[in-house]
Amino acid sequence: MFEGILERVATQRPLIHCITNYVTITDVANMVLACGGSPIMADDPQEVEEVTALCDGLVLNTGTLHTHTIPSVFLAGKRANALGHPVVLDPVGAGASRLRRDTIHQLLEQVQFAVIRGNSSEMRVVAQQHLTGASRGVDAGVGDATDEQNLEKVVRDAQSLSRRTGAVIAITGAIDVVADSQRAYIIRNGHPMMERITGTGCMLTGMVAAWCAANPGDTTRAVAAAVCAMGLCGQLAWERAQQEGGGVGLMRAHLADFMGSLTTKQLEEGKRVELR
Amino acid sequence: MFEGILERVATQRPLIHCITNYVTITDVANMVLACGGSPIMADDPQEVEEVTALCDGLVLNTGTLHTHTIPSVFLAGKRANALGHPVVLDPVGAGASRLRRDTIHQLLEQVQFAVIRGNSSEMRVVAQQHLTGASRGVDAGVGDATDEQNLEKVVRDAQSLSRRTGAVIAITGAIDVVADSQRAYIIRNGHPMMERITGTGCMLTGMVAAWCAANPGDTTRAVAAAVCAMGLCGQLAWERAQQEGGGVGLMRAHLADFMGSLTTKQLEEGKRVELR
Amino acid sequence: MFEGILERVATQRPLIHCITNYVTITDVANMVLACGGSPIMADDPQEVEEVTALCDGLVLNTGTLHTHTIPSVFLAGKRANALGHPVVLDPVGAGASRLRRDTIHQLLEQVQFAVIRGNSSEMRVVAQQHLTGASRGVDAGVGDATDEQNLEKVVRDAQSLSRRTGAVIAITGAIDVVADSQRAYIIRNGHPMMERITGTGCMLTGMVAAWCAANPGDTTRAVAAAVCAMGLCGQLAWERAQQEGGGVGLMRAHLADFMGSLTTKQLEEGKRVELR
Repeated sequence: MFEGILERVATQRPLIHCITNYVTITDVANMVLACGGSPIMADDPQEVEEVTALCDGLVLNTGTLHTHTIPSVFLAGKRANALGHPVVLDPVGAGASRLRRDTIHQLLEQVQFAVIRGNSSEMRVVAQQHLTGASRGVDAGVGDATDEQNLEKVVRDAQSLSRRTGAVIAITGAIDVVADSQRAYIIRNGHPMMERITGTGCMLTGMVAAWCAANPGDTTRAVAAAVCAMGLCGQLAWERAQQEGGGVGLMRAHLADFMGSLTTKQLEEGKRVELR
Repeated sequence: MFEGILERVATQRPLIHCITNYVTITDVANMVLACGGSPIMADDPQEVEEVTALCDGLVLNTGTLHTHTIPSVFLAGKRANALGHPVVLDPVGAGASRLRRDTIHQLLEQVQFAVIRGNSSEMRVVAQQHLTGASRGVDAGVGDATDEQNLEKVVRDAQSLSRRTGAVIAITGAIDVVADSQRAYIIRNGHPMMERITGTGCMLTGMVAAWCAANPGDTTRAVAAAVCAMGLCGQLAWERAQQEGGGVGLMRAHLADFMGSLTTKQLEEGKRVELR
Repeated sequence: MFEGILERVATQRPLIHCITNYVTITDVANMVLACGGSPIMADDPQEVEEVTALCDGLVLNTGTLHTHTIPSVFLAGKRANALGHPVVLDPVGAGASRLRRDTIHQLLEQVQFAVIRGNSSEMRVVAQQHLTGASRGVDAGVGDATDEQNLEKVVRDAQSLSRRTGAVIAITGAIDVVADSQRAYIIRNGHPMMERITGTGCMLTGMVAAWCAANPGDTTRAVAAAVCAMGLCGQLAWERAQQEGGGVGLMRAHLADFMGSLTTKQLEEGKRVELR
């Protein structure tokens, strides 16, 4: 299902410009490296356009927005669009403040995203922008945590959001949904303990950008592969940490260990994915 | 001694808003997760009031103050006070610059802290604010590293500072003192190697906020439990790292491992604490 | 060859002020601690002069420059110069933007560096400043990755750059060159996998500052020792990680493990160095 994806990342070592939050920035850089890419972090308005022009893909992550660097996400996003680089949005904490909501909604208007990846609460905020004027309430839409009961609806909403934004939509959680307007991958990799280390979502977003940059024209499959890979490495990392008598600390180290050595064979055998 | 403390954290999973330094921010987030809470980092003046209103507790850490985010600590502190959330001050590097001293002293005037936690040098700077006009010199007060000789005096000074600030005072070091105006816990957990990894103090402060948020009305005991827990996990982490032929690198990973699986039974059996 | 270097670091525990990028700041702090120093990070213009005056050495790293903290690198650099503290420049991503190039070139005019450490691409940008008006093109000079073929030329260029800047020059990569105007150390420690974890260069720069601060008057030898030590610990960390079935994640932890316990005997036996 994911033939060629990892190989192209390894061959091309795409350079990814990350404007990302300061909480998880080290782990994002290390995960981009581990998954086969190369990261550059830069967020000053005076240099982001030049930096992104040197790169193959761009991450915009809203985790620790600062008013003095908000112009950077627009400048970099537009330049990356002009250059045809994939731009990935991670709307971290989208609902936590007006500053985040407004910034995200303006980004959706001004920047064309290749992928938008968030948890279900964040993606609800993203979707609401595109539902303005509709009769749905705050709790409707893709906002509920995905489970077997609401899965059908989550997939429909993700595909609808994909149609409206032109982006591949990845809603991650206990069950992950990766959808474009035509297809949806339902992914059941991952481990609940991944929520107990900070930044697994941010790291995945960095990976997604690298894998999409190396696989142009095959974005949906590349995103699905990245989501499976992160979930699989999370499972393996927790299992290994437990075997060693450790926990979340060792798991964090092993997550990079497993990602750094992941093969297509392992991914194909370990993936738990359904294509609808 | 600490019955119920951990259980309440695990049940409530308090959400902690951290305005903290960029050196240790990842490790603080991971420790808040490991000890049972959930962290949000946000420090832009335009969003901190909204973010803290979503949370159950607030950390203000002065480790890497920036003039453009200093207004944030006042805005968040006052909002948290208005909402009755516990606010914990970590006066990192309090004596390193006029900017830090002035900010800390203004904070002490404008924000009511539930807990102030620092090492003895930092707490000396905090105490001096409250000794203005008194005849004591710079080297007096709680400024000396706590040892068996000066312990009585450190406890008295901590209790005096607690009376003046209304906060529980935690002075951590080789011997830790946690005091309110009535009681003092003397804690001898911990390992000297904990000073050789950055951020053990900052991580403890994050923990303290989470444990206090989940144990309202029982702040002094919650702080003492957190200080014991961090010290105990530090001992275990160093011991494990040594057994594995490692050192400070593995210790850092194992610190989160042990905190993530700590039980009340382990804490009760491992604590080295005296209540005066 | 490196007798006394580590011992003086361990005895003096030099305090190092780091104005460094946010991607690797935690790992830099932990490496400064592991190698025997003590770090303080502070980058607000209002406090950097005071902070650096408390310290024994200064790191200026351009990895995530921000316009609002750029004044800090000049203020701290000049103050450290006035106090006779060693100042180490790490021109991270020197060629990535005009902002970085201009800042680095202005720094070279206004601050006297004890050491400049970068990879060959970064050092090329540094050297070009000092070649203005000369007929060399962009691709000439120290810009090519160092290999056995161009080694002679890299050494000559490094010595020339040292003469012009008055700094010890460290060009790190598969082969490392540490040179002053008289001597050059050719170092073949290290492991290719060190490039797969973020910040090994930044960590080395922090170490270099600590080791130079503790060994005044012996800067070139201290830099060479630090470069050997980092390379050696990288080799050992990767080897250990592999033995344990791990990869880049464990390697990152073990790098600090090995640095934290490195002895002169290990360094002397493990060094792969040639003095020309």
